[in-house]
Amino acid sequence: MSRVADQEIISDLVIPGTSKIVLLILDGLGGAPMYPGGLTELEAAHTPNLDALAAEGICGLHDPIAPGITPGSGPSHLALFGYDPLQHQIGRGVLEALGIGFDLQASDMAARGNFCTVDDNGLITDRRAGRIPTEKGLELVKRLRTISVPDVEVFVEPVKDYRFVLVLRGEGLSGPLTETDPQKLGAAPLSVEALSPEAVRTAALFNEWISRAREILADLQPANMVTLRGLDKNPGLPSMEEIYGLRAAAIAGYPMYRGVSRLIGMDVLPTGETIEEEMGTLKAHWTDYDFFFFHVKKIDSAGEDGNFEQKVALIEEADQFLVPAILQLEPDVFIVTGDHSTPALLRAHSWHPVPFLLHSRYCRADVVKEFSEQRCANGALGRFPAMNIMSLAMANALRLTKFGA
Amino acid sequence: MSRVADQEIISDLVIPGTSKIVLLILDGLGGAPMYPGGLTELEAAHTPNLDALAAEGICGLHDPIAPGITPGSGPSHLALFGYDPLQHQIGRGVLEALGIGFDLQASDMAARGNFCTVDDNGLITDRRAGRIPTEKGLELVKRLRTISVPDVEVFVEPVKDYRFVLVLRGEGLSGPLTETDPQKLGAAPLSVEALSPEAVRTAALFNEWISRAREILADLQPANMVTLRGLDKNPGLPSMEEIYGLRAAAIAGYPMYRGVSRLIGMDVLPTGETIEEEMGTLKAHWTDYDFFFFHVKKIDSAGEDGNFEQKVALIEEADQFLVPAILQLEPDVFIVTGDHSTPALLRAHSWHPVPFLLHSRYCRADVVKEFSEQRCANGALGRFPAMNIMSLAMANALRLTKFGA
Repeated sequence: MSRVADQEIISDLVIPGTSKIVLLILDGLGGAPMYPGGLTELEAAHTPNLDALAAEGICGLHDPIAPGITPGSGPSHLALFGYDPLQHQIGRGVLEALGIGFDLQASDMAARGNFCTVDDNGLITDRRAGRIPTEKGLELVKRLRTISVPDVEVFVEPVKDYRFVLVLRGEGLSGPLTETDPQKLGAAPLSVEALSPEAVRTAALFNEWISRAREILADLQPANMVTLRGLDKNPGLPSMEEIYGLRAAAIAGYPMYRGVSRLIGMDVLPTGETIEEEMGTLKAHWTDYDFFFFHVKKIDSAGEDGNFEQKVALIEEADQFLVPAILQLEPDVFIVTGDHSTPALLRAHSWHPVPFLLHSRYCRADVVKEFSEQRCANGALGRFPAMNIMSLAMANALRLTKFGA
Repeated sequence: MSRVADQEIISDLVIPGTSKIVLLILDGLGGAPMYPGGLTELEAAHTPNLDALAAEGICGLHDPIAPGITPGSGPSHLALFGYDPLQHQIGRGVLEALGIGFDLQASDMAARGNFCTVDDNGLITDRRAGRIPTEKGLELVKRLRTISVPDVEVFVEPVKDYRFVLVLRGEGLSGPLTETDPQKLGAAPLSVEALSPEAVRTAALFNEWISRAREILADLQPANMVTLRGLDKNPGLPSMEEIYGLRAAAIAGYPMYRGVSRLIGMDVLPTGETIEEEMGTLKAHWTDYDFFFFHVKKIDSAGEDGNFEQKVALIEEADQFLVPAILQLEPDVFIVTGDHSTPALLRAHSWHPVPFLLHSRYCRADVVKEFSEQRCANGALGRFPAMNIMSLAMANALRLTKFGA
């Protein structure tokens, strides 16, 4: 399977329906053996419910971006929702601002900010300012809110720990702009540089804000400086409802995923960070939407920590608790997959393709009876780009009419 | 598996590394059974070393250009190195000139020349002039070097047997141009035609050279005329180092493959035509490069000769000698595949996809335990475009950072 029907083609084929789709994303699901010949995290996990679902469903392996490319979380989620991540490269500032519920307007420029520590020479000694707690970050954000910059409105919003969002609002703001985090210790924060003539004034405004922030924080410890990353505008993507005719809701505890969801017009439902809280949210809103994006974060975090056993345990928890609970709601289409692989072996996102299963009355089940990397490789979906997922979901929900006469 | 991350995307993700990649190309590796239900050449061959590598590695089948398209050697190698062969259609004249080590400049026009035999009416009776030996070709080339054409420098260089290279050097030379070989007997060689207004003068210069060559060769036998093919300029592709950050070396005994390698900036190492000489070259330069393209020609030649047993024997020789010798050097990523299929059944290149295996610490092995066309079809890489190979190699060498935040 290879070609991708683009969203314009799909949106022309959409027909009304009452069917319900659940896209369960176990973040960082794909793994790898810790030693040659060993099992992956998913293979090591005891997952009777996922295996039963695989036996009745159709399986495969998806490439979030393209073979060999390790995805960041933003691009991988865009691909899951059918938006081309190579075409839409969206700054992290936008995703963070949307993630915390900031009402980002079309002409706003948003940046992700980090508090950091610099030495007497202005060289970075800690890129995260000792990971200061959220309360401390909030206190510093209040100080930064005193900064004004000519001709624009300035918003500084806390995110979590050492992270904040900076938004400039005004006429004629433009990117593309460079980031100021040098990504290493012992170097000074960089200036914002304009990457096109239209962006020169915007770069100057950001740099003015930064030099004021430097003065305000100078005497503090450990957070005595800031860096800005992912400076960008909201690209104004068409919504899930416009493309797929779906009333779409996101159930995600973490800001980044809430941000991506808001970017494409999903209702982002209030929820918690545990799967029990998330499941409660799904039940409470079951009748209100056609499509639910259900995001489980902690499996990825265990992979990033290099904690194989913890990742196995969290996959087993999802299998035992979430899968039966979701099935009880009787979704017409139930998809379980990850947004990318995060093998404990690599302690990071990786390029490995991601196990995928789709369960529906009409899926035409394949031979796969166990949900694992090895078995999914022989599933009837083969190895396919993540951008095929939404058209498969829509087809199985009987929400697409035929193409051509 | 389908999408291809283009080279611009990949080059933005490259990170420095010390890992080493070996791409072993067994030219024309893919085959077909001589009768229905039989084995292919690779399946018939006893290949314990390749099978062990497949068991620890990840396998698939690649399409060099696209399903159903039989590749020439130039395009198939470009695809192996991640350059789009449909976008970069490079004249054989350029590849031949680079292959013999000619210092082709950006504004030069190069053509591949054949000596041929024409009858009294100027109609071709032998497109290869009885396959005259290399010494005879050299003698004729010396005669052709006496031809001068106004306002351009002319180079005539022998290649092998009845083949030579013609290069015109001067201001304002341009293609696209047609070829003069009518590709059949009983027809006269064609004139060079300009396919755009800028190419009119260049066509006239080539035609003037051809009419002088006709006069000089007229009284000889059997080589009394020439044809020109693949008239083109060096397209100036970005180098492997620019795109992938790899110090890349080619170990290839035959001019054509040396030419493709030079075209993309590889160091073309002096070597011989036997696999023992080539292996000696690899060992001698092991510490000098990050990436080695190791080309084995004769398997393809056996296929073109329709010699099934000879092709089996040469595959077995590569298995017994080359695979263990290369493994002893401990490459981080070791890929074994072909540039295309050359089934003895067809005595020619074919469109059949090519068995592929990638071995690395991080490859996430699949179920395939035998390196063959049938087993590779069930590999976790599935069936994929050859243009994915370099991104997979780079990912497994841990030389790519993630895409997006």
